[in-house]
Amino acid sequence: MFPIGTAERVIWTRFPRISRQFASKPPFKDTTNPQQSITYDVANKQKLYLTDPISPGSIFFLPTGTKIFNKLIQFMKQQQSRIKFGYQEVITPLIFKKTLWEQSGHWENYKDDMFKVEGTDASKETYGLKPMNCPGHCVIYNRFEHSYNELPLRYSDFSPLHRNEASGALSGLTRVRKFHQDDGHIFCTKEQVESEILNCLKLVDLCYGKVFRFNDDPNSTYSINLSTRPQEHYIGDLETWNHAESVLKNVLEKTGKKWQLNEGDGAFYGPKLDIMVPDHTGKSHQVATIQLDFQLPSRFNLKYKDKDNTYKTPIMIHRAVFGSVERFMALLIDHYKGKWPFWLNPYQAMIIPINTKDIKQVEACAKLKKQLAGENDIENDNDDDSEIEPIPLNNFRFNVDIDDRAEPLGYRIKDAIMKHYSYLIIIGDNEVTSGQYSIRTRDDRKLDHLTGKEIYDMFCLLEKNYK
Amino acid sequence: MFPIGTAERVIWTRFPRISRQFASKPPFKDTTNPQQSITYDVANKQKLYLTDPISPGSIFFLPTGTKIFNKLIQFMKQQQSRIKFGYQEVITPLIFKKTLWEQSGHWENYKDDMFKVEGTDASKETYGLKPMNCPGHCVIYNRFEHSYNELPLRYSDFSPLHRNEASGALSGLTRVRKFHQDDGHIFCTKEQVESEILNCLKLVDLCYGKVFRFNDDPNSTYSINLSTRPQEHYIGDLETWNHAESVLKNVLEKTGKKWQLNEGDGAFYGPKLDIMVPDHTGKSHQVATIQLDFQLPSRFNLKYKDKDNTYKTPIMIHRAVFGSVERFMALLIDHYKGKWPFWLNPYQAMIIPINTKDIKQVEACAKLKKQLAGENDIENDNDDDSEIEPIPLNNFRFNVDIDDRAEPLGYRIKDAIMKHYSYLIIIGDNEVTSGQYSIRTRDDRKLDHLTGKEIYDMFCLLEKNYK
Repeated sequence: MFPIGTAERVIWTRFPRISRQFASKPPFKDTTNPQQSITYDVANKQKLYLTDPISPGSIFFLPTGTKIFNKLIQFMKQQQSRIKFGYQEVITPLIFKKTLWEQSGHWENYKDDMFKVEGTDASKETYGLKPMNCPGHCVIYNRFEHSYNELPLRYSDFSPLHRNEASGALSGLTRVRKFHQDDGHIFCTKEQVESEILNCLKLVDLCYGKVFRFNDDPNSTYSINLSTRPQEHYIGDLETWNHAESVLKNVLEKTGKKWQLNEGDGAFYGPKLDIMVPDHTGKSHQVATIQLDFQLPSRFNLKYKDKDNTYKTPIMIHRAVFGSVERFMALLIDHYKGKWPFWLNPYQAMIIPINTKDIKQVEACAKLKKQLAGENDIENDNDDDSEIEPIPLNNFRFNVDIDDRAEPLGYRIKDAIMKHYSYLIIIGDNEVTSGQYSIRTRDDRKLDHLTGKEIYDMFCLLEKNYK
Repeated sequence: MFPIGTAERVIWTRFPRISRQFASKPPFKDTTNPQQSITYDVANKQKLYLTDPISPGSIFFLPTGTKIFNKLIQFMKQQQSRIKFGYQEVITPLIFKKTLWEQSGHWENYKDDMFKVEGTDASKETYGLKPMNCPGHCVIYNRFEHSYNELPLRYSDFSPLHRNEASGALSGLTRVRKFHQDDGHIFCTKEQVESEILNCLKLVDLCYGKVFRFNDDPNSTYSINLSTRPQEHYIGDLETWNHAESVLKNVLEKTGKKWQLNEGDGAFYGPKLDIMVPDHTGKSHQVATIQLDFQLPSRFNLKYKDKDNTYKTPIMIHRAVFGSVERFMALLIDHYKGKWPFWLNPYQAMIIPINTKDIKQVEACAKLKKQLAGENDIENDNDDDSEIEPIPLNNFRFNVDIDDRAEPLGYRIKDAIMKHYSYLIIIGDNEVTSGQYSIRTRDDRKLDHLTGKEIYDMFCLLEKNYK
């Protein structure tokens, strides 16, 4: 807790209204680490998140950071649910009795990294706070009878996960104790493994290539590591490990992508492909992962009924495309350096009245803000006692602020550019009369003149297309 | 764990492909409780969720239940972020050191209902798994300097919460240990309390009246309870309690709504308004809540700088509109009895080819399914090596299945109606030739003839308008 007057609080000075509440103590800055240093500066300036000793390693996402977080999840849900990929989202418990973790092998191999949960009641039952979603998905799988023609069955899950990292290792968004994965588990037959992994790699390419455009710059292109059996702490027999590793090698050869061997760095339950993205200093970070698992299905006695009416054990693939959403955000901060693309930007447009004392201009600003927030179609939205209509589902709603501070126009324009607002919309007498607003980007002084509807439609198109 | 062959597993018989995986052991049925009995039957037939002794009181939401859950959250986020209501969403930690719960008073008053979390490392630090979001929001509030003109400041949060209910009391979706609230905290001045509570009641009315239409049937109209100071286990002085209670009474009188007094049933930190909805048996359930809190802001030493440059303590309002999303879902199941309105329905349309052996008909079904899944605009979506385009953000994507089982047409139509699919689309030779599909609702035999585009547009309109 930080009572007023301590060094933890900083007084704001010249900051537009929307950001006043965010003049703050920043997350811890590690100046020896250039990657973290950029993340720190952007996170601090844009008020994306906080950390606090009251819960070390758990991020407090502030409103702007939450907007980015939610957009990333929304993007991934849209892609994963497409018919081609076919993931079905589930929501699973966060605590499970110790017996589950003993069955999965986590208690033996992963206990020191787990948090233990106990009630204060007489039962004294011990639970584990989940570090992974896989055992929970096995519980669901096992509650139903499965036929070969239902496979592959793919569950996705965005649950918060906890791992008890040493407090000295905690750092910003990259080393945390609470994080979210865009997690997924595929239950499939031996014959389906190859095509499933190929589809996972297509989803990775869609994400890192097409949308986040890491490949536009040859210095930030992603690479693939094949991690094989660890020397110690693994479960299962050598033959199965060798088979699994050769399947992954075959898939990699087929894709024609460059990859390299990372010997002994696999999970304790199987070999894996890790997708690596470099930060601006060239340091490589693991993001996506695709892990083959021949062990957990046996441990949980998972079965499906094959064509010949016999019961067989499915193979399990653990995969995540962002990996840790928190770490992926850190990489995006490094990648964009605070200049978010429009669709992800918590600061999409700043509306600036030329004369802040002119009621007509100020009213036009408020009207445009409402329109760009997707609230224009709603009738009866008065302050009287008439009924309010709901905002339609899936309406595009843009993050638009108004800077009506009593500061010179030039100062307010410069300030909005420095805060990386994607668009600046300037409203003076001419704009009020014509209904056409002057709009420019943060990078180009050129002014366009568009109606509110035209701006809204342009914004929708940008957001739809992940621009 | 339920190995194959135990009584926990049931073999499916005649069930369309989409549901095969869901022929299952249902959640526990309490036949003595008619409200729970309906919830049970619908949850079982529609495969909405599971419970399991491996995590008592934590719901496993299956894919269909997750769809409903996510739609409810999406609806609430759209409403709360509108300019008029002005909530800013944050994402906060799930575990906090014991000292936070001591400061908030939860450790003293609520300890027996909390789960204790510990690492297995040397630190032996004790955390509490959060039963409420309020202390976390106070931590955020306290990290910034606040001026009177930023208030009211409203945070919303959809974090999972845990309360250690006695295992004997656990029941379906209504008495759980893990649940989600559409939680919100308003930090405001004394003068703003009344208008903030009025706005909360407007949001309640928008939700229960306008969208979920509880008021259409006079038997399910919601009512308001004013709960006052508990006899024991409360914090703060009598005078403050009396003042808070009189403020709430004044607001209620102003709305003109019926309300009743629930003496002694307030939270330990302040009086509250509870919104009650009856189930079909007439039994009343608490859903929304609006709680005034004069205590927590003092305990956390929250401040804002007033016009006169002095620091004052804000008032805190805890409020939720659904209340527990899980319990709200149970009430919706009871309210709709499995016949979900189109926008919430995980079973929005069933496409049925007349002749399941006719390739053209089967292909037309797949093409229409893809169109209704919002995947029609995507180019290059072939199985060759061409790049895949992302699904646009905010695309409407409908829950559409195909029943191509080798069963008589009449049987498949009846089956889809019994499963409460909102629409049935029948495709035969005529439909393939004309491109106009025969479509009917679950309630009306009348057939319309619409193109794929016309059906998609109609579905968008229904979903936008919460029909």
